[in-house]
Amino acid sequence: MPDDTPAVQDFYPEDTAHCYGCGRLNEVGLRLRTRWDGDETVTRFTPAAHHTAIVGTVYGGLVASLLVCSGTGSASAATLRAEGRAIGDGPSPRFVTAALKVDFLKPTPLGPELEIRGRIVEIKGRKVVVEETLSADGVVTATGHVVAVRMRDDVSPGAGG
Amino acid sequence: MPDDTPAVQDFYPEDTAHCYGCGRLNEVGLRLRTRWDGDETVTRFTPAAHHTAIVGTVYGGLVASLLVCSGTGSASAATLRAEGRAIGDGPSPRFVTAALKVDFLKPTPLGPELEIRGRIVEIKGRKVVVEETLSADGVVTATGHVVAVRMRDDVSPGAGG
Repeated sequence: MPDDTPAVQDFYPEDTAHCYGCGRLNEVGLRLRTRWDGDETVTRFTPAAHHTAIVGTVYGGLVASLLVCSGTGSASAATLRAEGRAIGDGPSPRFVTAALKVDFLKPTPLGPELEIRGRIVEIKGRKVVVEETLSADGVVTATGHVVAVRMRDDVSPGAGG
Repeated sequence: MPDDTPAVQDFYPEDTAHCYGCGRLNEVGLRLRTRWDGDETVTRFTPAAHHTAIVGTVYGGLVASLLVCSGTGSASAATLRAEGRAIGDGPSPRFVTAALKVDFLKPTPLGPELEIRGRIVEIKGRKVVVEETLSADGVVTATGHVVAVRMRDDVSPGAGG
């Protein structure tokens, strides 16, 4: 899938596009971008040298950050699809994280591009549940479980961003 | 508790002190520091403006990062105490994260210093389980559950940092 396809975060409303993890308007953030690849979502990110834990590995907080923001992005994409819309077909709905679970299966090597793949396991009202894998060089090093809740347009967020 | 008391991360061996979240030798990292306050650990951090999610709130990935690194720090402190040692009484044992669970209870406001408090709920062999709260202005906005595993001195880490 070419990197120039539109990502769900490209269409977050401006006032919700400053997230350090996934906001296109955050100048120092990670600017994560999530797209469809068939029935899964995919998000890619190459950590910087300073994102280290023990030398040679990616620190767990970054792994968690990647899973959080690809989770809310996946929830947004899934909501669009459930409504019969493609990414870019109007603003992307904005989700926040209600719960996150990460299992660190093995060290995530620092260096290669990381790939986070999301699978939608539940859409119920404003809640979307996403199961994720994070891999480096094709090896899954962590799994994530994200419960995302859609922000209402008229109120401030109800959970972590 | 004055901020000049020693923190467990101050005594990580040099080759494990580069973590973006809690390594004293990571020049651009968060440099989290964890201390005892009675039977709980306490870690404090004031997010920067760019650590935003939805405007006015802290992004979920930072909340997770704070819980991860205060969790491994708490596990280290607990291991020292279980061995009858104080923080600074020799090198701090280094833990990595095997699992993390975060419940985002409400938005974490961006601005005030955040306080993460850890309670040790299990020490079994190389594994330590820590329950945590993260609060802003005295209000708990997230809870964390961290399973930390002690690194062996002779091998590379077995999980996320």
